[in-house]
Amino acid sequence: MISWKNLDTLNVYKKFLALKGRVNIVEAMAGENGAKRVAEYSVPMACGMKYNFAAKAVDDTSLDVLQELADEHQLIAKYEELLGGAVINTGEKRLVLHQLCRGQLKGDVIADGVNKRDFYVSQQKKAADFANKVHAGEITNAAGEKFTTAVQIGIGGSDLGPRAIYLALENWAKTNDSLKMEARFISNVDPDDAAAVLKSVDIPHTLFIVVSKSGTTLETLTNESFVRDALRNAGVDPSRHMLAVTSETSPLASSSDYLEAFFMDDYIGGRYSSSSCVGAVILSLAFGPEIFARIMNGASESDKAALNPDIRQNAALLDALIGAYERNVEGYLCTAVLPYSQALCRFPAHLQQLDMESNGKSVNRFGEPVDYVTGPVIFGEPGTNGQHSFYQLLHQGTNIVPMQFVGYKDSQIGMDVDIQGSTSQKKLCANVVAQIMAFACGKDDENPNKAFAGGRPSSIIIGDSLYPESLGALLAHFENKVMFQGFIWNVNSFDQEGVQLGKLLAKRVLAHETDGALKAYADLFDI
Amino acid sequence: MISWKNLDTLNVYKKFLALKGRVNIVEAMAGENGAKRVAEYSVPMACGMKYNFAAKAVDDTSLDVLQELADEHQLIAKYEELLGGAVINTGEKRLVLHQLCRGQLKGDVIADGVNKRDFYVSQQKKAADFANKVHAGEITNAAGEKFTTAVQIGIGGSDLGPRAIYLALENWAKTNDSLKMEARFISNVDPDDAAAVLKSVDIPHTLFIVVSKSGTTLETLTNESFVRDALRNAGVDPSRHMLAVTSETSPLASSSDYLEAFFMDDYIGGRYSSSSCVGAVILSLAFGPEIFARIMNGASESDKAALNPDIRQNAALLDALIGAYERNVEGYLCTAVLPYSQALCRFPAHLQQLDMESNGKSVNRFGEPVDYVTGPVIFGEPGTNGQHSFYQLLHQGTNIVPMQFVGYKDSQIGMDVDIQGSTSQKKLCANVVAQIMAFACGKDDENPNKAFAGGRPSSIIIGDSLYPESLGALLAHFENKVMFQGFIWNVNSFDQEGVQLGKLLAKRVLAHETDGALKAYADLFDI
Repeated sequence: MISWKNLDTLNVYKKFLALKGRVNIVEAMAGENGAKRVAEYSVPMACGMKYNFAAKAVDDTSLDVLQELADEHQLIAKYEELLGGAVINTGEKRLVLHQLCRGQLKGDVIADGVNKRDFYVSQQKKAADFANKVHAGEITNAAGEKFTTAVQIGIGGSDLGPRAIYLALENWAKTNDSLKMEARFISNVDPDDAAAVLKSVDIPHTLFIVVSKSGTTLETLTNESFVRDALRNAGVDPSRHMLAVTSETSPLASSSDYLEAFFMDDYIGGRYSSSSCVGAVILSLAFGPEIFARIMNGASESDKAALNPDIRQNAALLDALIGAYERNVEGYLCTAVLPYSQALCRFPAHLQQLDMESNGKSVNRFGEPVDYVTGPVIFGEPGTNGQHSFYQLLHQGTNIVPMQFVGYKDSQIGMDVDIQGSTSQKKLCANVVAQIMAFACGKDDENPNKAFAGGRPSSIIIGDSLYPESLGALLAHFENKVMFQGFIWNVNSFDQEGVQLGKLLAKRVLAHETDGALKAYADLFDI
Repeated sequence: MISWKNLDTLNVYKKFLALKGRVNIVEAMAGENGAKRVAEYSVPMACGMKYNFAAKAVDDTSLDVLQELADEHQLIAKYEELLGGAVINTGEKRLVLHQLCRGQLKGDVIADGVNKRDFYVSQQKKAADFANKVHAGEITNAAGEKFTTAVQIGIGGSDLGPRAIYLALENWAKTNDSLKMEARFISNVDPDDAAAVLKSVDIPHTLFIVVSKSGTTLETLTNESFVRDALRNAGVDPSRHMLAVTSETSPLASSSDYLEAFFMDDYIGGRYSSSSCVGAVILSLAFGPEIFARIMNGASESDKAALNPDIRQNAALLDALIGAYERNVEGYLCTAVLPYSQALCRFPAHLQQLDMESNGKSVNRFGEPVDYVTGPVIFGEPGTNGQHSFYQLLHQGTNIVPMQFVGYKDSQIGMDVDIQGSTSQKKLCANVVAQIMAFACGKDDENPNKAFAGGRPSSIIIGDSLYPESLGALLAHFENKVMFQGFIWNVNSFDQEGVQLGKLLAKRVLAHETDGALKAYADLFDI
């Protein structure tokens, strides 16, 4: 029997709080003990990746307490409930089924009279067939010419995840002759966003994918109209160039305005929707359906690994627990995500949404205020770029910011140069390794301006290289980490009521139904 | 006589701390009082912009205390010292002269026997002449063909500022027939970065600008070699395609490997160097020298405005003081920078470096540890994108994150669409206004999951539109804000010793001179 409890009501909670200051990272990571930690504090992940947490402020005793927390809090059982189709999204009374898009781990899930795995697979197949026909020249523009570019029109989860994935694999695909079509993205209601993208594409050879689950997202519908105008101005029939990704009950679903419609449902939240048709259509068009399937396979491997009840063998679970320790016990507000891979340049922006929108909550899953802090602030940029930017504060600032590194042994494209006895890729790897140790152990110096206190905790995910499966596994790792943290904090990670008030007030401003400060601000913009 | 003091030694410090919790934003911004605040709490800025701080937790009494702090701390006198050529960068014993690139506000600055304003102007002119000749086809490739693309090779300040500026004006320039050449950027030592950029440009028609003050930056020299190899492989003579931006004493300065060299000096830090040749060469090539000059004129207007000792008339100074209040009195760690302009998509990344690298310090300008917190963590994305992403945590998370909005009445490109009675640009503006009020006043609801506590402070900079002068003014506003905050915290905002240890350890890794945990980590990457 699952028991949904607040973190501070657990028996283990006192022991958990008592971990504060337990491990001195500077000492723990020094000498041979440090080497031993690096060798031992490593969890195998999908696709041969490893989660290494040697430079986190934990030791075997801490791990025992975190294991106790995981067990008492039934974190794995809760995950199994989710996989089995329980109503985990309590606020909206919905199932949570994004993992089901990439594999079935706990039997059939039937909802609304439908086998949901079959539904998701059928939509992926529809996206695959459509993409294959476009690539084969069976679906063309009115002049019978092939489409060369796909533009996703969507915002939030309909944008950040698919965009981060596209950028992560674009150069890999070029190198492996898998880039079938260029992809572009329009998200912002700022008209300069759509205008700039439209100016950069060859409209007669471009497909536009309108992505909105409800079919009512202001930004997306506005940008759709913007694009339709541009198509008409270019002498092109919009209905031959536009696709819809939406729910079956949305106004977009059965409209003849679209060449084809692909369906998602209410059981997959926007920030988790890359595995649904939100990702499948654009990524199958860009890379081909078999590449999308490979991403899903990697994600499914991560989902399986996340079922292991032993925290020393479950990277997503341990990552979540250490993060909760840093947040609730040590009181750190932020986590920096630092991929040493230029291909992951927009992955931190995706994780920022994934994490902050899921767990940036002040009430528990029953709608009651909680008495502890929840989700962290997430930010990050690729290394080594960040080293020459904000790392100064991470090294010598007055606050500690825990870090999550990602690094790969090999590059994607394979072009490289040997300077002073090492390739660029080796230099990249040497830098991430050096940073971890500089943050952990610091350095004494007579001049305090050149001294580093150390004690700045970090983990690293290490992989051989970034390819479709390992990217999918990375994506799912973080989704599952965020899910486990939601369980730990007992919040609903799958709604986002915090976005509603702004929408409501914006409508009032546009309708001129304002007074007081809101009217005064609107006046400043001559609205 | 200037007295450099720690913040907590000021007479006003107790009064400053006593401001804690003084203003309840929810109450202050309600009703007609809120409208009055919006009307009154507004500071004129350069280029007709306004800094509106109505939704910050300050009132007239707070402002009096902040004015007292500014006066006692001699913040304007310190700025005047800087402009006059004092050794403000105490750690490296250097002058701080980036403002001198865009105007001379306090008499001649002579250093090393040189009139520095003349030096900076002469280098800008050299960049202008060179760019004009490239545009006119007087400087061409070996085949006598025009160059069409310029690629900046640099990292940190040699990358983020110029890149953010280029992206901010690229579409404006296209719309105004001012885009002379496309610009691209290579920064990361990750070989996939350079490889991807090289694959995307037409090498025989591309100029490459190697930017490194010291001429020793690992990433930049490595990427230079990478590019030189690619040029040779394309049958192109690198010396006809490569420019250097460096100091006069660097190994790059007088090399025949470059078509031309442009000079900077030690008195301009990387993150402040967009106004030097680091920005002048790439931006003059991309947009033409007159556009670069217009950016500088806007920046100079901000620099002048920052001299006003009245905090109610000095946006940069007031912005700095309110930020310090939020950091030291209220204890907030982060600040989110949220431009409602897609063109400013990388401006937050530039500000992240500018702020965190300048003030992420734990020692004062004399190298003594300080007993208070210093620079904040900066992150941000353009609105409305962020609304569908991390704003959930900003609205309903357990921690308060102060915000800095930027918005414009008009778009850059001018293409727009009218849907449901309003243009996209109006919708964009309505959203930023709505967000400010949603954050400030929140909303009660029977269901705590749909309730918003409010009390989340924000300011907004409002401009007519984003064009060269207003962009320059915005850039300088933040530079001057960060400078004033450095004075408030008594830190040296112009060195970055925190980047050194990582460099040192990376060298050891590459030389295989490691043991303990560092060796163990290197082994994980097979280095």
